[in-house]
Order: sequence, then structure tokens, then C-alpha cells
Amino acid sequence: MTSSSSRAADGQSRRKMRTRAALLGAARALLAEGREGASIEEITKRAGVGFGSFFNHFPGGKEELFDEAVFEILDGYAAWIRSVTGDLDDPAEVFARSFRLTGRLVAAQPDLLAPLLARGSELLLLERGLREVAMEDLTRGVATGRFVALPAEVHLMSVGGVLLGLVQLLTSSGSLATDEVIDAISAGVLRLLGVAAGEAGELVTRGLPELPSALMTDGQVSYS
Amino acid sequence: MTSSSSRAADGQSRRKMRTRAALLGAARALLAEGREGASIEEITKRAGVGFGSFFNHFPGGKEELFDEAVFEILDGYAAWIRSVTGDLDDPAEVFARSFRLTGRLVAAQPDLLAPLLARGSELLLLERGLREVAMEDLTRGVATGRFVALPAEVHLMSVGGVLLGLVQLLTSSGSLATDEVIDAISAGVLRLLGVAAGEAGELVTRGLPELPSALMTDGQVSYS
Repeated sequence: MTSSSSRAADGQSRRKMRTRAALLGAARALLAEGREGASIEEITKRAGVGFGSFFNHFPGGKEELFDEAVFEILDGYAAWIRSVTGDLDDPAEVFARSFRLTGRLVAAQPDLLAPLLARGSELLLLERGLREVAMEDLTRGVATGRFVALPAEVHLMSVGGVLLGLVQLLTSSGSLATDEVIDAISAGVLRLLGVAAGEAGELVTRGLPELPSALMTDGQVSYS
Repeated sequence: MTSSSSRAADGQSRRKMRTRAALLGAARALLAEGREGASIEEITKRAGVGFGSFFNHFPGGKEELFDEAVFEILDGYAAWIRSVTGDLDDPAEVFARSFRLTGRLVAAQPDLLAPLLARGSELLLLERGLREVAMEDLTRGVATGRFVALPAEVHLMSVGGVLLGLVQLLTSSGSLATDEVIDAISAGVLRLLGVAAGEAGELVTRGLPELPSALMTDGQVSYS
């Protein structure tokens, strides 16, 4: 390629990435407003891109866009969780902090996660962000004898199932969406994993970092 | 009404009930064969009823029929669970037996429950059969101090979530669908509810009744 055609290709590729990012940004904003029913016309208008460009980027339609938007949110959230648990050695402590924070995320932003919930428990199989962070921690917890000796996959389905149940509880009965209830459930999950009751109760009283403020507004988390 | 017109109305009502029962029976058989994709034509043929009668009974179409078929299976199963735990006083023992049996049902008949799974965690809110049996037991367990003092609704979402996770595990990774894994998960759920680890481990080693053989073939359980 000549240098000028290469520059043209770079420009085209940058434009493509901008269009894609704009569509995902619009999707995140709509999700945060609980408006995943928005039309493609509204989405492209909000993103400031042409209607015709939509299917170039998301041939699967709105569902593909919203799914990808939520996956990216969760990937960003998972990277953040990794960064705020990096100082901890004990897998039980890592788990307690992660689960309690995730419960708070769900309570604060139920609409954000609605499209994923519609996928039901199949969600637990998706090899993205949060699942991998959880698998690493569960595997280490089993290897070190901190958690009950079962395949990490089995633990993942149990704790992921409780998380789904928690999400359902919070979306259906907002009055139970308190930090106290979330921490009580987290202690239960720690006991399920094999942590002694007294210790589980203590682990869920420790201080927590604040959720990233951007995540609490439009779901945008920068990868760290 | 004259006696003869009353007899005619009775006859019509009996015919209606027979048609409905035949459609539900065909749906159960198809579910057990993993064939929920069957056409309405095939369903009515199998049920031995006219194509036109389908929408009189299930105006919502196939989804309504299959949902109702699974609900009836679960209602029947719930009644059976109630009958085989009636001899137990301890809510933890009732829970252990119920959860272990339900795990075995799921492992033996994953296709039967597939249409419900597609509803995801929303399933946990359905006020039918199994949910009510579980709520009664959890409420009693909390009231007697056997389970952690939380609203029974909160416990239900946790244990129901683990059940969904277990279903997903079994349908996605059949090799983990062993009684041993199901019992290990059951012990975890007992600990989550507040039962001490040693006792939880012991509770899941006790003898279990056989699942009703009819349930294991075509999902038909007679109400008791």
C-alpha cells in the first residue's frame, strides 16, 4: 500500500470504530434509562450516525447491540473488580468484596442488566468478564483448601445462581434492595463455599471501595 | 335447565376437559422427548383432537400449552414432595430431602424443564407448586430459628437461584450430573441457610424415596 492509501484506510477504520463506539454509547445510555425498547432509528439518531450503518456493525439487530453493550459494561466492571481486589490474598476475602460490590451494582442499576437477565441462567455460561474473574478466584479458593473441594465450575453455578436470584429479588421487590440484605446473602454464599459462619459474618462487615461513579450513571467503565 | 339440557351441558364440559387433558398429555410426551419445537398440527394429531380446537383451549399458542404442561408437572411434583416430607419435623431435613430430590429430577429429566428454563430467573416469582412448598418450609425454618433470620423471600431467591444454576450445570455439563455433586450442592445450600457444616454434610447422606416412576417417563404425576 502507498502511504496515502494506508492513511485513507486508517481513516476509514477509525471512522468505523467511532461509529461502533457511538452506537454502543447510545445503547448504554438507553439501557441506563430502562429504554431497551427504543427503535433502531432512535438509537442511530442518538448516536449521531446514519441509519444504514447500524446493520454493518450489528447485523443481529438491536439484541446484538444491547447484548454487546452489557457485555462491555461487565467486562469493564470485571477489570475494575480485579483492580480493587488485587491487594487481597485470601480468596474468601476477594470473593466477599466482589460479591458484595456486584450486589450493590445490581441494586443501583437494575435496568442496566435487564437485557442480560432475559437470557436467564444460560448467562452463567457466557465466557466474558465477570465469569472469568469469579472462576479464577474460585479455582484458587479450592486449590488452597479455603473453599469446599468441588470443581470450580460447580461453585460458579451455585454462586452465579444466587446472584441471579438476588437480581430477581431486587428487581421484583425493591424494598429488599438494602446493603444489609446484600451482605446477609453474601455471608450465606461464603458459608455455601465452605467458610465458617462466624468468619463469613465478619468478612461482610469490612469496608468497601465506592463503585466507579461513571458506572453508576451511564455504565461506562474505562478498562484498567 | 331441564334435566336433558343439563346432561348435554355436562357432556360438553366433559368433552372439553378431555380435549384439554389430551393436549396437555401430548405436550408432556413431546417435552419428555425434547421436542417442544413440534407444530400445532403434530400436537393435535398426537392428542387425537381437531386442529381447530387448539386455540379454544390455548389461545396463547404453543408457548401457553407447554408452559401449562410444565406447571402441571411441577404442581404434581410439589404435591408429591409434600407427601414424602410429611413425616419430617425438622425444616432443615425437609429442605435437604426436597432439594436433593429436585436435583435428581432435573438430572434425570432436563428436557422436561427446558421450556421453563427459557424464562430465566423470572421463574423464581411464579406462584405455582414448588415455590409454595419451598416458601412454607423456609418460613417455618426461619420462625423456629433453624435458618438464618431473613425474610423467607430472600432465602427463596438464594436457594432457587442455586437450583437454576444446578439446572444450567446439568444441561451444559452432563458429566457433573452425579448424585454426589447434587448432594454436595445441597449441603452448600443448607450451610447458606444457616445449618452447621457437619450437620449439613450428614443430612445429605440420608436415604431418599425413589422419584415417581411416571414422572421419570412422561412427566405425569397424579395429584395426591
